[in-house]
Amino acid sequence: MIIVLKSGSTQSDIDYIKEKLHAKGLKVHVSQGEERTIIGAIGDERILREAALAAYPAVEAVLPILKPFKLASRDFHKEDTRIKVGDAIIGSDDVIVIAGPCSVETREGLLEVARSVKKSGAKLLRGGAFKPRSSPYAFQGLGEEGLKYLAEARDETGLKIVTELMDPRDAELVDKYADIIQIGARNMSNFNLLKEVGKMRKPVLLKRGLSSTVKEWLMSAEYILDEGNMEVILCERGVRTFETETRNTLDLSSVPLVQSMSHLPIIVDPSHAVGRADLVAPMSMAAVAAGTDGLLIEVHENPEEALCDGPQSLRLGDFASLMKSLRSLAKALGREL
Amino acid sequence: MIIVLKSGSTQSDIDYIKEKLHAKGLKVHVSQGEERTIIGAIGDERILREAALAAYPAVEAVLPILKPFKLASRDFHKEDTRIKVGDAIIGSDDVIVIAGPCSVETREGLLEVARSVKKSGAKLLRGGAFKPRSSPYAFQGLGEEGLKYLAEARDETGLKIVTELMDPRDAELVDKYADIIQIGARNMSNFNLLKEVGKMRKPVLLKRGLSSTVKEWLMSAEYILDEGNMEVILCERGVRTFETETRNTLDLSSVPLVQSMSHLPIIVDPSHAVGRADLVAPMSMAAVAAGTDGLLIEVHENPEEALCDGPQSLRLGDFASLMKSLRSLAKALGREL
Amino acid sequence: MIIVLKSGSTQSDIDYIKEKLHAKGLKVHVSQGEERTIIGAIGDERILREAALAAYPAVEAVLPILKPFKLASRDFHKEDTRIKVGDAIIGSDDVIVIAGPCSVETREGLLEVARSVKKSGAKLLRGGAFKPRSSPYAFQGLGEEGLKYLAEARDETGLKIVTELMDPRDAELVDKYADIIQIGARNMSNFNLLKEVGKMRKPVLLKRGLSSTVKEWLMSAEYILDEGNMEVILCERGVRTFETETRNTLDLSSVPLVQSMSHLPIIVDPSHAVGRADLVAPMSMAAVAAGTDGLLIEVHENPEEALCDGPQSLRLGDFASLMKSLRSLAKALGREL
Amino acid sequence: MIIVLKSGSTQSDIDYIKEKLHAKGLKVHVSQGEERTIIGAIGDERILREAALAAYPAVEAVLPILKPFKLASRDFHKEDTRIKVGDAIIGSDDVIVIAGPCSVETREGLLEVARSVKKSGAKLLRGGAFKPRSSPYAFQGLGEEGLKYLAEARDETGLKIVTELMDPRDAELVDKYADIIQIGARNMSNFNLLKEVGKMRKPVLLKRGLSSTVKEWLMSAEYILDEGNMEVILCERGVRTFETETRNTLDLSSVPLVQSMSHLPIIVDPSHAVGRADLVAPMSMAAVAAGTDGLLIEVHENPEEALCDGPQSLRLGDFASLMKSLRSLAKALGREL
Repeated sequence: MIIVLKSGSTQSDIDYIKEKLHAKGLKVHVSQGEERTIIGAIGDERILREAALAAYPAVEAVLPILKPFKLASRDFHKEDTRIKVGDAIIGSDDVIVIAGPCSVETREGLLEVARSVKKSGAKLLRGGAFKPRSSPYAFQGLGEEGLKYLAEARDETGLKIVTELMDPRDAELVDKYADIIQIGARNMSNFNLLKEVGKMRKPVLLKRGLSSTVKEWLMSAEYILDEGNMEVILCERGVRTFETETRNTLDLSSVPLVQSMSHLPIIVDPSHAVGRADLVAPMSMAAVAAGTDGLLIEVHENPEEALCDGPQSLRLGDFASLMKSLRSLAKALGREL
Repeated sequence: MIIVLKSGSTQSDIDYIKEKLHAKGLKVHVSQGEERTIIGAIGDERILREAALAAYPAVEAVLPILKPFKLASRDFHKEDTRIKVGDAIIGSDDVIVIAGPCSVETREGLLEVARSVKKSGAKLLRGGAFKPRSSPYAFQGLGEEGLKYLAEARDETGLKIVTELMDPRDAELVDKYADIIQIGARNMSNFNLLKEVGKMRKPVLLKRGLSSTVKEWLMSAEYILDEGNMEVILCERGVRTFETETRNTLDLSSVPLVQSMSHLPIIVDPSHAVGRADLVAPMSMAAVAAGTDGLLIEVHENPEEALCDGPQSLRLGDFASLMKSLRSLAKALGREL
Repeated sequence: MIIVLKSGSTQSDIDYIKEKLHAKGLKVHVSQGEERTIIGAIGDERILREAALAAYPAVEAVLPILKPFKLASRDFHKEDTRIKVGDAIIGSDDVIVIAGPCSVETREGLLEVARSVKKSGAKLLRGGAFKPRSSPYAFQGLGEEGLKYLAEARDETGLKIVTELMDPRDAELVDKYADIIQIGARNMSNFNLLKEVGKMRKPVLLKRGLSSTVKEWLMSAEYILDEGNMEVILCERGVRTFETETRNTLDLSSVPLVQSMSHLPIIVDPSHAVGRADLVAPMSMAAVAAGTDGLLIEVHENPEEALCDGPQSLRLGDFASLMKSLRSLAKALGREL
Repeated sequence: MIIVLKSGSTQSDIDYIKEKLHAKGLKVHVSQGEERTIIGAIGDERILREAALAAYPAVEAVLPILKPFKLASRDFHKEDTRIKVGDAIIGSDDVIVIAGPCSVETREGLLEVARSVKKSGAKLLRGGAFKPRSSPYAFQGLGEEGLKYLAEARDETGLKIVTELMDPRDAELVDKYADIIQIGARNMSNFNLLKEVGKMRKPVLLKRGLSSTVKEWLMSAEYILDEGNMEVILCERGVRTFETETRNTLDLSSVPLVQSMSHLPIIVDPSHAVGRADLVAPMSMAAVAAGTDGLLIEVHENPEEALCDGPQSLRLGDFASLMKSLRSLAKALGREL
């Protein structure tokens, strides 16, 4: 960690800080520049983060050298983490497509979607039984009934299921049904919920927060890893900007960025990012070309009647066409789908 | 709600949408412009929000007319809501100052802060026993031990206490000690937690989310109000922008904006917004001049040793000076502090 | 245009606004909802934009129905605009790659880059002779000397050249050398400069502003079109967000979004968007899969010695490899490169 | 400057970079941490910025120690810069209010506004003769005719005038009439325009760019200072965020932040920031409490008929009332208005 002192700092300022750093068991190196004195502190930076160095009156800035996460970093684990769910391996040459409705609404509708996306080549089925909705007056999900429909769809089609956990009190219930537990964007910094899924022994799909940096996102993954659950799948779903034509701004550069910083697999949810069905196909294609490990796509048997996210849901036929395009794209890139 | 059709829409497109709207019990009015057809739907817009109108192929845009919240709106409740905690009334001519450390760390430190801020004129004491920290390696709070220290400080000084609830499973515990329950910025969209505090009969201090619009913030308040708890205090604490010199960007225009849209009181937390102790005083002054109902200020007996947010915490003496300035400012504005 | 009146508006408020709208030659329709009165004004919305309707005390909101641009819109011109430069057609099945250094620095360096990117398949050469730099102490470009080197590189390799115009006073000079005139992101709202290139009869490459919406970007294009120059190529180059690991956030959804809203071609500059050479290749691939009409890629013969944007410039060999990958990707998508 | 090497860097990587730094005349210090090697380079960082250090394959990050601006910094000039215009001193205990219409529209209207704001206590008159409008179809300003009306208003009222320069080709013309030359937010990074006003000997009011950091804004000021014009007044006018209820988000923390980083005076434009007349008064009050050196407020004799920014313009009476409130606030703060 590098500590930059204010212009005009005295020797006693320097000595004071040196002493504090020594007391924490750190090696210290002072370097006198023409305009600024800087102090380098060598040792475990995580100790330093605890120290409120920037609160010392003589300190102008504190510059960390190391990334704040450890278990999630490439330095810690050089090889790609591969996560097996059914016969799908996320983090491999296969592009894994997860498809389904935003929320589970009816048994029949869900089964129709499941059969259709299975036929088109999806490997997992998504569907929310607990829905975080910005309005208390909006449909909040079917709860356990929805989970049962998902299980029934799995039994019939063989598709493994991904569903969201919103509340630590529902952890056991959701664990009973889900193959992958989703943590939604709004809960990326719900640290108690992260600790809870960290204690499970089941893959977690961790969505990027609405306005979180990649570093913060990896810190949230660190919470799960730190509890002993090493199966975290990151999911880019767009970040908030000033643009109003799209729901969010899909940040595809997070795909290779995460791959350079971390060993964890990363998939892309184009549906929530753009919020418009007509932009889902090109963004799905782009995500695959950017190197994503998979896609999470909203599909509905009748988007006009959807209780949630209709405008961004693909119709069954459009999803089937998209899968064809994705398959030939994956092939051209030396991958499978 | 106004539905704008795409250029080139046919009569059968119009009829199809009209029929759907009629089926929902709405009155419909079609208006043919030179370049676009628009359809006005009259009735309860909350029904319309459920309908995925934008998913209809002929629809270009859907423009809501009414605000999506009701209980939180000025239309619903013309007078200012005033919330009494001890002898403080939040939402009145009094500027209420809440002060204390980011997290409760030691019994002695907390008591020292409590006595000092009481003497300076603070009306309530803040301090976190459960802390949402971006790193799993950072201090996570003392839990119930911290709550007990807060209660002890209240017993000694008479200051009522504000403390954060992060997890619905701790609701009963926190309720036992707190006078105002804080919902942190990271939990503004943790809707199950909002419902939980909505069931309590105790004031809730609801922080604005890191990148939430004022409308979304009021929707979160609506979750609490809808459960029957009408005592919600909004707290502006800065939003995320590209600026890196400050931790967040304090949006003081949210103070008069909220006051025009809602009857709920609003206070300002300058400490988290700027993240630097040297900017807290001018931003506190500005908040009062903007019309805030109160301030939430971080104060620590020794910021250099703070386990949380040291760089933005005021020293006891600096807080005392600031309170003097705030008092004469309030007086000049015809208010008390 | 839809005018929403405040709750509690009176008949005389309505009459006042109706009269004002009639006076502007517009047809007016009033609709009384349960909670709000709305007034629809039918006619040329561009007249209405001039009217400060929102300044009327009784008005709560003004909702435009039509897009504020006309010449740039798909409604106005259904077919894709195709722009021919040399033997390249931008806006066709060919993915056009423009490559070269950020700034023209030396004659030899530029020629080396030009020969190499030509061999790799680039169709045009980029290079700045006038550079907008955030620091007055940074290299500001070689001026006309740089333009001459570009012309020499064109003579030798046959590559057409793209170079930036920053100042209307240099318009004639730059026009003498350039085949395509670039307007940089920082000048997207330099309206006098836009009018100046609007008077030229030469394609203009218009970069998206650092934090501009797609609508504002198309409004800037409208300035050029309105002066009679119909050859505008839009260039996505990332927008500003809170993320700090990348220079900007590349918004690839703007590619299909622009294609749905406008007939103008759109290309992507991944180099400025990410600011890191290691992310340029995956983002170039993603841009092509998203349907871009072309790419603008920074290439330098020795990035470590570059006077501008070294960290984001590809080496000659890396660019050659990328072009191979792009070529097979384009082919798989039924396009050429 | 601190150069952080990638994990696994070899001695030859270190030697290569050391050699490069030595060749630039810098002193070098290498420090081997447990997980990373860091290289400190001591000397003029402006030289280092020219070097594309981050392009070296072994480099993970480059951390600058010094601020990139010099002439604008407090380090360079300890005392506050005070700028005298007529009998107003900007950067003093006086809060200087500049008021007037967004654009000069009619001779009579301007004179009416000038007389009225003079009477209310404004010290300078604002009004645009050249207007940067996002639409080519919007009113673009009266040009020299507008400047003449401003001069007439000055002759009659004694108010000095502030008006915008958009194009370097109009520099001489605007210089002939203006007392303070305004550079608009959209031109903050129009570096040639900055150089042009840097050559004048007249105060420049430099607005913050729509999404610029405080550092970038000071770099733009540096362009003007570097040309020899030391009279730069900074003007905060809000930055772009995701919020849609206000036009921009007023960043009042930039006032004390600029004051800590720079010696230049800073004023606040609440009108453009919020875009709504009803929020202008509280934000003006807040700006004064935050310590602004002045205010720039839009006032129109008839906002409903304004050709530009009507919804955010104050009526003459409302401005007079606001001035009374501001005056007693200033007094309470030990200042004058």
